[in-house]
Amino acid sequence: MFHVLSAAQFSKDEILEILHSASQMEAILEGPGFCELAKGKILAALFYEPSTRTRLSFETAMLRLGGGVISETDVTFSSITKGEVLPDTIRIVSNCADVIAMRSKTKGDAAIAAEYSSVPVLNGGDGSGEHPTQSLLDLYTISKEFDLESAMNVAFIGDMKYGRTVHSLTTMLRHFPNIKLQFIAPDALQIPDSYFQEGDLKQEALSDEIIANADVIYDTRIQKERFEDPAQYEKFKSVYIFDVEQVNKMKDSAILMHPLPRVNEITLAVDDLPQARYFQQAANGIPVRMALIAKALNLSA
Amino acid sequence: MFHVLSAAQFSKDEILEILHSASQMEAILEGPGFCELAKGKILAALFYEPSTRTRLSFETAMLRLGGGVISETDVTFSSITKGEVLPDTIRIVSNCADVIAMRSKTKGDAAIAAEYSSVPVLNGGDGSGEHPTQSLLDLYTISKEFDLESAMNVAFIGDMKYGRTVHSLTTMLRHFPNIKLQFIAPDALQIPDSYFQEGDLKQEALSDEIIANADVIYDTRIQKERFEDPAQYEKFKSVYIFDVEQVNKMKDSAILMHPLPRVNEITLAVDDLPQARYFQQAANGIPVRMALIAKALNLSA
Amino acid sequence: MFHVLSAAQFSKDEILEILHSASQMEAILEGPGFCELAKGKILAALFYEPSTRTRLSFETAMLRLGGGVISETDVTFSSITKGEVLPDTIRIVSNCADVIAMRSKTKGDAAIAAEYSSVPVLNGGDGSGEHPTQSLLDLYTISKEFDLESAMNVAFIGDMKYGRTVHSLTTMLRHFPNIKLQFIAPDALQIPDSYFQEGDLKQEALSDEIIANADVIYDTRIQKERFEDPAQYEKFKSVYIFDVEQVNKMKDSAILMHPLPRVNEITLAVDDLPQARYFQQAANGIPVRMALIAKALNLSA
Repeated sequence: MFHVLSAAQFSKDEILEILHSASQMEAILEGPGFCELAKGKILAALFYEPSTRTRLSFETAMLRLGGGVISETDVTFSSITKGEVLPDTIRIVSNCADVIAMRSKTKGDAAIAAEYSSVPVLNGGDGSGEHPTQSLLDLYTISKEFDLESAMNVAFIGDMKYGRTVHSLTTMLRHFPNIKLQFIAPDALQIPDSYFQEGDLKQEALSDEIIANADVIYDTRIQKERFEDPAQYEKFKSVYIFDVEQVNKMKDSAILMHPLPRVNEITLAVDDLPQARYFQQAANGIPVRMALIAKALNLSA
Repeated sequence: MFHVLSAAQFSKDEILEILHSASQMEAILEGPGFCELAKGKILAALFYEPSTRTRLSFETAMLRLGGGVISETDVTFSSITKGEVLPDTIRIVSNCADVIAMRSKTKGDAAIAAEYSSVPVLNGGDGSGEHPTQSLLDLYTISKEFDLESAMNVAFIGDMKYGRTVHSLTTMLRHFPNIKLQFIAPDALQIPDSYFQEGDLKQEALSDEIIANADVIYDTRIQKERFEDPAQYEKFKSVYIFDVEQVNKMKDSAILMHPLPRVNEITLAVDDLPQARYFQQAANGIPVRMALIAKALNLSA
Repeated sequence: MFHVLSAAQFSKDEILEILHSASQMEAILEGPGFCELAKGKILAALFYEPSTRTRLSFETAMLRLGGGVISETDVTFSSITKGEVLPDTIRIVSNCADVIAMRSKTKGDAAIAAEYSSVPVLNGGDGSGEHPTQSLLDLYTISKEFDLESAMNVAFIGDMKYGRTVHSLTTMLRHFPNIKLQFIAPDALQIPDSYFQEGDLKQEALSDEIIANADVIYDTRIQKERFEDPAQYEKFKSVYIFDVEQVNKMKDSAILMHPLPRVNEITLAVDDLPQARYFQQAANGIPVRMALIAKALNLSA
């Protein structure tokens, strides 16, 4: 059964197949706007942690495929993570739905769900764990602009330690050896050793040179609370913020990505610049999730 | 793009076109019960303030048109009104849906949403601001009983100061100069000058004569908390309540409307009288919203 | 109009007709997976008390019939049970939907809803009152294994006093005089006299003989809080728990049922034993509710 649990589960061939399928789905969205591939099928969206964006993206994907949706968004259902409750819930829901999209606060919940489910489980984020559908839409966004086999620079900026989207996308980018990765973060929030490899760059300073040479800048939120010393936060706060002046240092062909929601790390004025790609990135979640649902349901476009 | 933001945005011709379309939609509801005009289209219902009635009415309208629905009802999303958050949310949601129905606690939110949305926004109530789809269903309700070009008396009763449905319906009725408006309210809650014009009536007392001469009585809730002097509230409480005795003073052909929910201003026994039209009024929200969604999506019936 | 309010409302013929229709619906689920019997129809799921399982089962049933769903799950809507509010809500919702599934905290709410609704109301549990769709799926589960006209033993175990599923299923089983009922519960939680009749067994002790002779064991949760004397609770806690050792005493052909959710009264290891039927029982809710919705909407399969 095709569960989507982790960025690391995918072979390069599988990734390329999903990206190809996503582009076919995007053609459907831009043409008729919908199809009936999943007619009569049901997606259960179990969101035990609020995430309007991710939930609506999954639900939209299923509706655009012609299927139906049932949803649970009760975040007070705290007992979901207790051993006894999650398996029972999943066994019951998997008798209702043909595929489950799930988000929870606790790492490992999606894997437990997959163990007990009789239908495919798509991990929509399990706490500090994984968010593999985000990584796929991130990669799809890059692939729409660049040949993944070509040499290019991807600069990750912000919180490299706790940012699960950075970890998961990094894992996927390792399949493409011509892509050079750069991690720009305060020392206290640098990329863990397990994600770093020879040839990568890792430093605190966000230099003009990095900005100018990047093909992709993947910006993330850094939280004040992560810093013991407020002065440290102040030091990075301004240099890491992307305003029009910073973005104008980027190549014309480069793109600025962000997993959203942003707080203040990209100013609103940047939204109108040609490099801004974060809303398109979010929108790319729909064809990617259509592709994943179709694969999970063994539908062929 | 056809956003529905304010009662004042509509020309008389547009209003008449929408009422005509609503009557066609009502014929669909009474015949086959549904159609497939909006097949493959998606309505996003963003309700940041609870309103079961309005949300279910929008969702029903979209389902009866053959479309699909995605919903967000998390009222704890308090940050929605902050400048940075609402635009980002709307940009993301407008990449999912083909039309957005939105309700929020803060005046002006719908206009901000329309500014950033790539799809039409239907204002389902923005705090103390507007509720234009309510005005259209109110007007549709009147138009089903009376020729809007004929002479008639519409008596508004209750809270004229804070009642946004009164303000918005008043604005629309100004297109029909033969309709005479009467505003009956405690002095402290009278109609603002901006909505009053020469020829209208404005007074505290709800006389038997007003009741007997009205073609439409539009009753609204008045809240005890609005009065500094409890004795004032007691004075109006009983005379403004519509019980069977009061309603029997109305013409047989007259109708009693109320935007609902009611508290105690119309007694349950009135529900069975021929003048009671408030449940039909609520039901009229469905064909009217079908008409608005169809117009927003450029669908033709 | 076909409302489903109480287990006692059904004649034997009606019960058999619903079970037959449910088996036809199950054939649809196992064949094409869905149908379009209810195309264009809308189910309103009003859940004023949280019950993911029951709500998703109703919603799934409607989607598998090809219909649409609107939902309200705001449990903070405490005023729902006040006389004035529930009737108004129901009148409005019954103008949106073709059938209403409702759950609330207060006994009698479903009956009030049925009184004011212009469409069929399906009671999904009204507090300490009834849960008739659960009884029908329970009975359907038994009927899939046994001929209801044959002699058999059904042993209810746990809380016989407050367990509404026990009361309602008991009521339905009375139509089948060859089924012998046994109620095993602490004295303080025994079956009320109104549900007990001559020929039944009622006792505290869960003997090996009862387990060995039962064709159906219907286990329920007993709550510690129900006991004044903690020692009493300890006494029953272990003997009433079904672990592998206990279930192995059952006949091979016997089945173990539970309305779920369970707490600790059936251990997880039992899930893999051939007698375990509680997940299948929950899944049976879908064809049974499809049958009820189809009957309520006058659809013929």
